[in-house]
Amino acid sequence: MFKKKKNIIFLICDGMGDRPSKHLKYQTPLQTAVTVNMDKLAESGMTGLIDPIAPGVPPGSDNGHFSLFGYTLNEVPGRGYLEALGYGLELKEGEIAFRCNFSTVKRNRKGLLYVIDRRAGRIKDREAAELSKAVQNEINEIDGVEVEFHHTLEHRGILILRGNLSVEVSDVDPHKVNEPVLKPLPLIKSKKAVETARIVEKFVLETYRILNNHQVNVEREFRGLPKANIILPREAGGKTLVKSFKEKWGLKPACVAQGPLYRGIAKSLGMKVFMVKGATAMPNTNYKGKIEKALDLVEEYDFVYVHIKAPDVSSHKRDSKEKTDVIEKIDEAISQIVELSIQNLSDTVTVITSDHSTPCETGRHSGDPVPILISGQGLRRDAVKSFSEKHCSSGALTRLTGRHVMQILLDQLNMAMEEGLKMPKPSPYFRADYEPLRLKK
Amino acid sequence: MFKKKKNIIFLICDGMGDRPSKHLKYQTPLQTAVTVNMDKLAESGMTGLIDPIAPGVPPGSDNGHFSLFGYTLNEVPGRGYLEALGYGLELKEGEIAFRCNFSTVKRNRKGLLYVIDRRAGRIKDREAAELSKAVQNEINEIDGVEVEFHHTLEHRGILILRGNLSVEVSDVDPHKVNEPVLKPLPLIKSKKAVETARIVEKFVLETYRILNNHQVNVEREFRGLPKANIILPREAGGKTLVKSFKEKWGLKPACVAQGPLYRGIAKSLGMKVFMVKGATAMPNTNYKGKIEKALDLVEEYDFVYVHIKAPDVSSHKRDSKEKTDVIEKIDEAISQIVELSIQNLSDTVTVITSDHSTPCETGRHSGDPVPILISGQGLRRDAVKSFSEKHCSSGALTRLTGRHVMQILLDQLNMAMEEGLKMPKPSPYFRADYEPLRLKK
Repeated sequence: MFKKKKNIIFLICDGMGDRPSKHLKYQTPLQTAVTVNMDKLAESGMTGLIDPIAPGVPPGSDNGHFSLFGYTLNEVPGRGYLEALGYGLELKEGEIAFRCNFSTVKRNRKGLLYVIDRRAGRIKDREAAELSKAVQNEINEIDGVEVEFHHTLEHRGILILRGNLSVEVSDVDPHKVNEPVLKPLPLIKSKKAVETARIVEKFVLETYRILNNHQVNVEREFRGLPKANIILPREAGGKTLVKSFKEKWGLKPACVAQGPLYRGIAKSLGMKVFMVKGATAMPNTNYKGKIEKALDLVEEYDFVYVHIKAPDVSSHKRDSKEKTDVIEKIDEAISQIVELSIQNLSDTVTVITSDHSTPCETGRHSGDPVPILISGQGLRRDAVKSFSEKHCSSGALTRLTGRHVMQILLDQLNMAMEEGLKMPKPSPYFRADYEPLRLKK
Repeated sequence: MFKKKKNIIFLICDGMGDRPSKHLKYQTPLQTAVTVNMDKLAESGMTGLIDPIAPGVPPGSDNGHFSLFGYTLNEVPGRGYLEALGYGLELKEGEIAFRCNFSTVKRNRKGLLYVIDRRAGRIKDREAAELSKAVQNEINEIDGVEVEFHHTLEHRGILILRGNLSVEVSDVDPHKVNEPVLKPLPLIKSKKAVETARIVEKFVLETYRILNNHQVNVEREFRGLPKANIILPREAGGKTLVKSFKEKWGLKPACVAQGPLYRGIAKSLGMKVFMVKGATAMPNTNYKGKIEKALDLVEEYDFVYVHIKAPDVSSHKRDSKEKTDVIEKIDEAISQIVELSIQNLSDTVTVITSDHSTPCETGRHSGDPVPILISGQGLRRDAVKSFSEKHCSSGALTRLTGRHVMQILLDQLNMAMEEGLKMPKPSPYFRADYEPLRLKK
């Protein structure tokens, strides 16, 4: 029935959705950017708006991705775990990981620690590594739980607690300056969560004791730099038992991503992860290289997830002009996809969307819906000819939520199973649980 | 990061949504009315359609409001309670209140009471007050439950039963003429509901006994007026334990409303209620005064709910021309909001919508979705330039349900918390449950 098997390139432009910016004459970066290739795909395909989670709910990058891949919020393992995985740190069940920052705090008269700089002046790797070593040397174990601290990049690190612990513990990082460091609290009524919170509290207090007067910080203070005098863990995560992407959708997946979180997300769902020379997860990344890699991979894999972090980086810097440039570079990079697609030379379905909006005006994730386009040979088209937040609002996909996307794609590949058939889901091509009938001997 | 805190004016034009009317060349009142100010806000903002509860479900004014404020139907305390509260009558847990009408009934040969006029010819206050006194004098207590009847306006009153009772009891009022008065029945299997129904039945039969031959009614009959010879309770309600609006959304709320139900809704959610000189909850209300009050309040409050009852009043009168006028008066009154908003002089987000549609053709609430606009500095815009049921159907908000509205607004104020952060909801600005970390002494 189907000559060739169709496949998908799923391009997530991180944080691309935006709001009108006064620096761009009240247009969004995506409206301002010249995007001939995205526009061609919009014209030859279907468009719409997606609320990755729900209207008005700002997704984190982790749960935004999980939602687009068709998983529920309950299935998201927590960002600490995903980043640990992205850095190649494996966890067993019951072990948990936190994202951490080296931060600068100041003690007030009442013994509260106020956050002065959440990133300790974006402390450089060399100094952070030295401070990290001091912490590792002094803290190996707290109340019988094995403690590992791994410095990663600049002010960032990963804390791993190896025991029988709970991820339901609140962030120590207040996520804002001029606020006190928060006491970690159990988020559910459970002995494990209480114990985990207590261990995290001990860890944080210990880091302050070790770091505050450390030689590196004495020197930083002397140079007028903020001390990196505490480690603030946040976003606890641990292994969850979810179906792999292949099990869930019957598609063999690959990922092209550079940022550790995104590699971690892909790994946690059983995607094969590829990195590309010159890719940086920053606006200076190798856009063309990533798309070329995707075009290679799509020969062998059914679903190639390509992640481009740059728009979100510009958004967090609140630089709407850089974001506009970044979007134009993405657009240039996809020209080959577009040529193949428009000339009907390819059986690839191209999807372009975003895991969340990050308005440059605020520099924070927002709950505004993200634009999406789905374009491929033989798929429906709508009247939208331009890819932007505004134009996509009148697209044929209307406004859907993230969990609808994969089911729609499966159907575009003619792989969605008709409701009512008593066959293994999601697709007749994937029947691991089924057995053939055997003749009796 | 954000210079000023944004705030919201939330204007509910009661029953404004409509269907095309043959008296208006098959346009709706909102399409027919000249609404330059609403149109400007639509042009500078996002529009869409809202099903307050769900597609095709006609909301009551109480549950329409609760849905728009982000509460579930289970959390609606029942209209009897809300009106009682609006009249300043307080209830404790287990006590219940009913809306009541003085009605005209006629006894048939089989002893059934047929409703001839649900409003007893809209009996005037003086006579109703006298009948009311007769009922109050004779009924203070039924089966150990304290009984209070309060006359309010014209044919209307409130019945309060103070005991340990259930709101799950059916209406005695058949809501139609030429139908028999209904026996109150328990709506759930519960001893309390059975007992409550029995007490209500006794109350209603007693009012017929007291009123049917009362001197006031003898005189009314002599003058050819329908007797007010029974009191028909309906829409039992009692206190429910829901989060206040402030607790739920982290926004300090105020309300400008005149109708008792709307004041009651606001009070039940902990909103501070303000009344305005000349406001009547009728088409002759003080439109400008209400909007001016809202503009004052928005300096101090984060969320100012303004209720205008007039469009619904015209709808129930089935007067599409008066409704058109009413809408034009609302439009005129909001000119100051629009000027401040369009010139980016204000950090106020303006929302205009309706708690339900009330088509003039039927004079009853319908399940047609209501138009909505959300407009403010730096918010997304769509291509819609006119505020009407028809134009809003192609807006960027598409078609959402009532429960999405508050979450979207919170996000537009940059107060929605990113999913995945292990922080107190709904916003990092609201952390009643959190403790700072303390250094050990």
